Amino acid sequence: MPTPPIHPEPATAEAPLTPAIIFEMLQAHQRTAALKTAIELDLFRALGHEPGDASTIAQACSASPRGIRILCDFLVINGVLAKEAGGYRHTPLSATFLDPRSPASVASIARFLTNPAMQDTYKNLTDIVRAGRTTMEGDGSVEPENPIWVQFAETMAPMMAPLTAPLGAVVLEGHSGPMRVLDIAAGHGLFGIEIAKQNPQARVTGLDWAPVLRVALENARRSGVEDRYNMLPGSAFDVDFGGPYDAVLLTNFLHHFDQPTCVGLLKKVHAALRPGGRAATLEFVPNEDRVSPPMPAAFALTMLTSTAAGDAYPLSELSAMYAEAGFKDVTAHPIPMSPHTIVMGTA
Amino acid sequence: MPTPPIHPEPATAEAPLTPAIIFEMLQAHQRTAALKTAIELDLFRALGHEPGDASTIAQACSASPRGIRILCDFLVINGVLAKEAGGYRHTPLSATFLDPRSPASVASIARFLTNPAMQDTYKNLTDIVRAGRTTMEGDGSVEPENPIWVQFAETMAPMMAPLTAPLGAVVLEGHSGPMRVLDIAAGHGLFGIEIAKQNPQARVTGLDWAPVLRVALENARRSGVEDRYNMLPGSAFDVDFGGPYDAVLLTNFLHHFDQPTCVGLLKKVHAALRPGGRAATLEFVPNEDRVSPPMPAAFALTMLTSTAAGDAYPLSELSAMYAEAGFKDVTAHPIPMSPHTIVMGTA
Repeated sequence: MPTPPIHPEPATAEAPLTPAIIFEMLQAHQRTAALKTAIELDLFRALGHEPGDASTIAQACSASPRGIRILCDFLVINGVLAKEAGGYRHTPLSATFLDPRSPASVASIARFLTNPAMQDTYKNLTDIVRAGRTTMEGDGSVEPENPIWVQFAETMAPMMAPLTAPLGAVVLEGHSGPMRVLDIAAGHGLFGIEIAKQNPQARVTGLDWAPVLRVALENARRSGVEDRYNMLPGSAFDVDFGGPYDAVLLTNFLHHFDQPTCVGLLKKVHAALRPGGRAATLEFVPNEDRVSPPMPAAFALTMLTSTAAGDAYPLSELSAMYAEAGFKDVTAHPIPMSPHTIVMGTA
Repeated sequence: MPTPPIHPEPATAEAPLTPAIIFEMLQAHQRTAALKTAIELDLFRALGHEPGDASTIAQACSASPRGIRILCDFLVINGVLAKEAGGYRHTPLSATFLDPRSPASVASIARFLTNPAMQDTYKNLTDIVRAGRTTMEGDGSVEPENPIWVQFAETMAPMMAPLTAPLGAVVLEGHSGPMRVLDIAAGHGLFGIEIAKQNPQARVTGLDWAPVLRVALENARRSGVEDRYNMLPGSAFDVDFGGPYDAVLLTNFLHHFDQPTCVGLLKKVHAALRPGGRAATLEFVPNEDRVSPPMPAAFALTMLTSTAAGDAYPLSELSAMYAEAGFKDVTAHPIPMSPHTIVMGTA
């Protein structure tokens, strides 16, 4: 696979300083649009295993040869496709993760990540930085019943699926026998469902807005665990958790809120756990410098634009929240080959 | 300067295949917005030579500490700023090319490159690829009197300034004495002005829309060559060029049009040159594969979204156009440390 070479190297002792990286950043939005468009045109299905020329692909996509040629070239430049004498073909990356026929395809995440409700906020980024919070109404993406979470549940599952087995293993740690698990902000439900799959005596309660839980329940059905899957519709801050639980999952959730709100929620989680029970968060956890590794650190910008006070919290801050809420033995488990870390505390 | 590490490496024999690059591309629009916002907030002026913390910078930018902290961290992740214990500071890149106090600052290019008239077209990219042409009205960016070209002239000059000396040297090649030069699509006028500066006996005629030429004339005044600078307002396709000229400049222009249109214009240029006179184009010229080098090759996408039939033409195609228009001795002169190439033909 070719190296995506559109990103100019930063200047070093050997390379002279040029403004190329500035030009490239100011055009970076093209990369988002190009990949989104290729997915919308079903380009990655149209590409066969033999190289295809622009006209053939254009016909399959009901598009123009000029448009397809320039789009495909752009995707080659960015390392997504390959080009050779006979035309364009899949790279291992596109065949694995973008061809809708691949079981590992994540193409659906484009719908959530380029959702106008999320992406259009960047038009207001200057005002957002001035104000220090989202310019969306109310609490932004976590406003009650925000329909984007149905879309998240429907489209982001392929990105989360590889994380479920590691999370299940860390939470269960060989634990078998009857157990009750609460999955807060269940979304697609995959994390709770994985626990139910790994432990046939586990009963899982998914908590989320009712329209979101319909997606989770459908996934539970597909996995054959719906008889052990209960639904608790509503807000994590308002509904009675019930319990006691042996484990509580808090995946992709704490980052939406400020520290006092997170501590309050963790206290409520603590109160719903049996003594010795575990709370496990799945988070983007940057290093203490907040600028590395790049993916978890950059996630803070998404929280700036879409929430009132959320953040990508480093481990020291997550640990402090857990401790303040009464948890002990807080441990961090980075998931290999992913930007996510599991942080776990014991009640 | 730190390597911008947000771009995941493509998979190699050593690195496992992950969808990180897909996630990154779908979020790449954030990089454009972040740099644009930092420029709008005058962040690069607010940064001193000593590290400054988020609160201090926020005060200087009339912004919030949370917003500035997350924005600055994002710029560090992308290799634009540096962060150390005491706070944020300039990198050589930002001090040279983004601080408005630097004579080499290119910060103004953000206004043209993120102009909503240009950037918003990417919302329609799927329709554009289907149609094979811009969805802007008429001929898109080259519609008569399109106001974006005044903005281009006003803001893109710093990006073009380093190219003027190489272009002047190639066109003049030691030629001194009286000469007449026509600068088609003069814009900021810097290329023609450079010829007038290098040869005190050169007279330059700038051709562009009248409101654009006002910017060129102001630049000619600043350079002290206004007494040898004439204006020819109108469309390059419609106005009488006059002549004969010793040299004609066609900078950043041919890429907007299809090949027959380019050939027609080059014939008109040929007719306006004295025998042995030179036509010099400044262009993004990709290799014959149309996918390298990345910057000139990727420029084709800008032509797809903003024109009816423009392109980033490889040298074989530009040479063929020149030949068809009657030019001989066509030569290419890549400008070092820039994505631009000068292509020159002799009448």
